[in-house]
Amino acid sequence: MIETATPVVILVRPQLGENIGMAARAMLNCGLSQMRLVSPRDGWPNPGARRAAAGADTVLEGAQVFGSVGEAVADLQHVVATTARSRDITQRQLTARRAAEDMRGWIGSGDSVGVLFGPERAGLENDDLIHADTTLSVPLNPQFSSLNIAQAVLLVAYEWAMAGDTGPQERLAVNDTRAATKEELANLYVRLELALDQSGFLRHSKMRPSMIHNMRSLLQRASMTEQEVRTFHGIIKYLAKGQHSEE
Amino acid sequence: MIETATPVVILVRPQLGENIGMAARAMLNCGLSQMRLVSPRDGWPNPGARRAAAGADTVLEGAQVFGSVGEAVADLQHVVATTARSRDITQRQLTARRAAEDMRGWIGSGDSVGVLFGPERAGLENDDLIHADTTLSVPLNPQFSSLNIAQAVLLVAYEWAMAGDTGPQERLAVNDTRAATKEELANLYVRLELALDQSGFLRHSKMRPSMIHNMRSLLQRASMTEQEVRTFHGIIKYLAKGQHSEE
Repeated sequence: MIETATPVVILVRPQLGENIGMAARAMLNCGLSQMRLVSPRDGWPNPGARRAAAGADTVLEGAQVFGSVGEAVADLQHVVATTARSRDITQRQLTARRAAEDMRGWIGSGDSVGVLFGPERAGLENDDLIHADTTLSVPLNPQFSSLNIAQAVLLVAYEWAMAGDTGPQERLAVNDTRAATKEELANLYVRLELALDQSGFLRHSKMRPSMIHNMRSLLQRASMTEQEVRTFHGIIKYLAKGQHSEE
Repeated sequence: MIETATPVVILVRPQLGENIGMAARAMLNCGLSQMRLVSPRDGWPNPGARRAAAGADTVLEGAQVFGSVGEAVADLQHVVATTARSRDITQRQLTARRAAEDMRGWIGSGDSVGVLFGPERAGLENDDLIHADTTLSVPLNPQFSSLNIAQAVLLVAYEWAMAGDTGPQERLAVNDTRAATKEELANLYVRLELALDQSGFLRHSKMRPSMIHNMRSLLQRASMTEQEVRTFHGIIKYLAKGQHSEE
């Protein structure tokens, strides 16, 4: 997931160093590393930012500082502005997910991209928005939509990472073993049925087929590993032994 | 987006009140309101949590406290555990996106769902994971994957919200006006061409068709509003006037 061409995250007039640090951490979590700062309130570098970055120091060390949004976006070809509120500027407005797809497209064809994030509380001004060709708005709870700036950076960076993720949506974590084959499972079922027959559990011949069916269905659903099948064989063996000694 | 049946967020042995508060804020951002706490280190209620919740007090006020994970999940039918690391337990492992789809399915059919989040740094123990039927893992930067707990809550809650979002991925924010009709645009093009003909800009008859084509294409791409079309008419009028006075 470490890519060389990635969107630039531009924090406009950020106030708290802590938020800059948490934004850096969220960026690196998602494989982004290029940060720009426009007029950070408390100057730069900021020790509070480093404390909150939790190890994402490379992002902070590489951060570039600019005096205006215009200068910060001058070399970029596409600029996306994040905004929670609807504004009186007419602009193309995307969800974070769609924006991530667009950014993948732009960067894939060799263009450069920046994303503007506004200061805490106030957000971006219309004078900032005018530097963007596109706005991005996360469709959250309309009664409580104000995101912390680091949370906003995380969502945008996360969607960027997901748009490039080709891994499976679901997998079985099996570590040192592997999924059991159907033959291994069939052998287990036979063993279990034999033991249950011997124990008298399946003595009602009318119920027998459906009981076996239900039991197999349950075990199939568990997606057992080869190791678990072996463990299960052992369990049957020991339980059956106990029964015999009781009889 | 305010729904009555939603997943329960369960913070297991959370340490910093600030993180509990930020998690509550992230939940409410995404329309979640049910929080459970298992053995919060600093007791409960926690004033630091309230400060960080930035207004999501209802979530904190409704939070239920339990002494163990087993008690916290006892009434739930599906439990998803979040984990960054692969473990030695064999478990169904989903991305946050897929897990959100599954949770929508479960809740849609009337089942109850909880999501476990581990304590800062250590994450969930194997003894916690065993209470879950499913694990959820966000496929982030493998070299820097440790998420702050509130960030992890945000991503899971965000995917929950997105899985239920039926709004458009893209729209043109037009506020008090509306998108222009093609007829309004055609009238504008005619006016512009007339003005450019009069000014001599289109005097090279060989180039004329392609110049007109390019200009129309540019204006089409801008997705103008009815108001912008009117403004543009005014601009042409005033610029043309200036020309005449110079001539």
